[in-house]
Amino acid sequence: MAEKVYQCTVSAPVNIAVIKYWGKRDVGLNLPTNSSLSVTLSQDDLRTVTSASCSKSFEKDTLWLNGHAEDISASKRLSVCVEELRSVRRELEKENDSMDKISQLKVHVVSINNFPTAAGLASSAAGYAAFTEAIARLYDLTWTPTELSRIARQGSGSACRSLFGGYVSWEMGELHSGADSVAVQVEPVEHWPEMRVAIMVASAAKKGISSTSGMQATVASSTLFQERIKNIVPGRMQAMKQAIRNRDFETFAKLTMTDSNQFHACCLDTLPPIFYLNDTSRAIIRVIENINAAAGKTVAAYTFDAGPNAVVYFLEENSSYILDALHAVSKHAEGWEESARNPTSVKIDDVASETVSSGVSRVILTKIGDGPRILSPEESLIKEDGTPKNA
Amino acid sequence: MAEKVYQCTVSAPVNIAVIKYWGKRDVGLNLPTNSSLSVTLSQDDLRTVTSASCSKSFEKDTLWLNGHAEDISASKRLSVCVEELRSVRRELEKENDSMDKISQLKVHVVSINNFPTAAGLASSAAGYAAFTEAIARLYDLTWTPTELSRIARQGSGSACRSLFGGYVSWEMGELHSGADSVAVQVEPVEHWPEMRVAIMVASAAKKGISSTSGMQATVASSTLFQERIKNIVPGRMQAMKQAIRNRDFETFAKLTMTDSNQFHACCLDTLPPIFYLNDTSRAIIRVIENINAAAGKTVAAYTFDAGPNAVVYFLEENSSYILDALHAVSKHAEGWEESARNPTSVKIDDVASETVSSGVSRVILTKIGDGPRILSPEESLIKEDGTPKNA
Repeated sequence: MAEKVYQCTVSAPVNIAVIKYWGKRDVGLNLPTNSSLSVTLSQDDLRTVTSASCSKSFEKDTLWLNGHAEDISASKRLSVCVEELRSVRRELEKENDSMDKISQLKVHVVSINNFPTAAGLASSAAGYAAFTEAIARLYDLTWTPTELSRIARQGSGSACRSLFGGYVSWEMGELHSGADSVAVQVEPVEHWPEMRVAIMVASAAKKGISSTSGMQATVASSTLFQERIKNIVPGRMQAMKQAIRNRDFETFAKLTMTDSNQFHACCLDTLPPIFYLNDTSRAIIRVIENINAAAGKTVAAYTFDAGPNAVVYFLEENSSYILDALHAVSKHAEGWEESARNPTSVKIDDVASETVSSGVSRVILTKIGDGPRILSPEESLIKEDGTPKNA
Repeated sequence: MAEKVYQCTVSAPVNIAVIKYWGKRDVGLNLPTNSSLSVTLSQDDLRTVTSASCSKSFEKDTLWLNGHAEDISASKRLSVCVEELRSVRRELEKENDSMDKISQLKVHVVSINNFPTAAGLASSAAGYAAFTEAIARLYDLTWTPTELSRIARQGSGSACRSLFGGYVSWEMGELHSGADSVAVQVEPVEHWPEMRVAIMVASAAKKGISSTSGMQATVASSTLFQERIKNIVPGRMQAMKQAIRNRDFETFAKLTMTDSNQFHACCLDTLPPIFYLNDTSRAIIRVIENINAAAGKTVAAYTFDAGPNAVVYFLEENSSYILDALHAVSKHAEGWEESARNPTSVKIDDVASETVSSGVSRVILTKIGDGPRILSPEESLIKEDGTPKNA
């Protein structure tokens, strides 16, 4: 008789920071130099689906990530997450005789992003959040998202924020152990559900330096960076939380743009300098400035992570106005198909318009969303025998 | 009989800062928020020639700048310089009866840059330095360059540094009057004459925000900028002076690159963000990094002012090595004609090479140079009747 295969399938969302995480005070534990704050994006559009399973028949801890198998024990980040969750399960099994002793079994994990890695979206955040959540559910752990966030953080820093929906902060904490460096929900989706998002994917010729090594170069060499983490971010975190509580889009937007700019300023103050923004990114910034100028107030905010893609935040009430303008400068990009757009009333700088038109290959229209979801067994990525469905 | 026309002709150099001036604490007096330091470039290659004249027959103070006449009294910056010099002359005339009373006469000034304004070089620095020097010479003032720098500074801040050759600092000063905000020579050309310069002119599609308004936007909105001016620049000024005194190119180069990057970082930390570097600029930075990596030490330094053009500093001993590499990525640019170049041994990033190749339209090869020169009457730009020669 075949060994029993335990399994659970979840999905986890992408999150895009509005107060940026950049820099670690402890590289091993992924403890950040400053707190950060993000908006969770809807899993209807962007998500990682992960199935975790365990069985006596499995020979080693294995992850199939987008179809490629890897040995979990060969990855420090992956094995830290598995081992921490496994030890929690082991304690529960000790306390409760009726629980199956599945902490002793090897795991098979299958994970798929529904968005191309090449899109430059923070796939590791959704990935490690789904990985942590899937194994925690497999083990029937009753931890809160904040408790789980301490584990996901060790996989990928920003993953901790993907364990919540809505508006989420990652509080940097003070302890050397990292026990207090966790994510908390600032407000749920329902508090301010009108937040909309357009991602403008710039067809980057080449990926720049990875964020993992880039951020530590900044910590080591930027003389402006210390000022940012000590004297600027703490006040911005408070102001951003207040803006979200007040549903004050203008303040939210200005802080978002200012903090994105400052993050990239610190990258430029690094030696050798790190550039993630390219001419397309800069042209998108000009287009957003044109959109806000024409509106007479700040109705759209750009933010850029470690790459040239723009993420644009706006409210549902201004959707038509903003999407018409973005469409006018990126008509030929993939992603507009289902969105019937009208000509824009916004006067857009010609050079910026041309640059965006030739540099943006794809748009993704989405909105704020909820936290990880448990999916039905039908959605599992793992067959009953414990092998990946699409392997 | 025609009225006598007094006249004098001078030339003044361009200077390129290695510790950047950005931000005014007093806009009217052009008092800077931080000290700065520059290298004066040779007038054999780049210069402004200015003839100043005065005569009873002149009806108003007029400047012909590159062929365009303008009323000096309509420009606050120009008239401040003229009036300050005129009042000094007036005092001398009072004290000395034998002096001609030319301070009462209107002036005609004719000024020509030998380089295109479109090249984005700091033409106002050479321009105001030549303007100030020409009138001071016309008036037979015996002021030192430092004394004159106080006047030129009010025309254009960085002009004060073009009154000296060699390595020049502009000490920010402390007084509200600006009396102590003057240029001084750190070292003359002869101290370290081997400094060479290649200017890579990026064919900018469009000029960005002017430095005059850009710098005050940074002062008003960048939260990192205060850290730069208070806690970073003072130490860099000392370190840069020491590097120059020690003829320590590696330190000079690293400080130059770091300070250029930080200036542009502060521009990016401005709201709305200011971008002067474009994809071509960034590619030039990569090429310089490749050149230094291949050399195993820092033999070339880039710096960028308020535009996309790169100024590259290097020593004469490394000229062939560096120019061969720069030529390899900009073969079709104007300016290489007189320079027979060999293939480069440097391995240059393909994307950077292509970007530079399509983005750099012109190179200017020059070197460190001396301060303003008095030219012979044959070089005057003014006819004997006081009108411009090419009008």
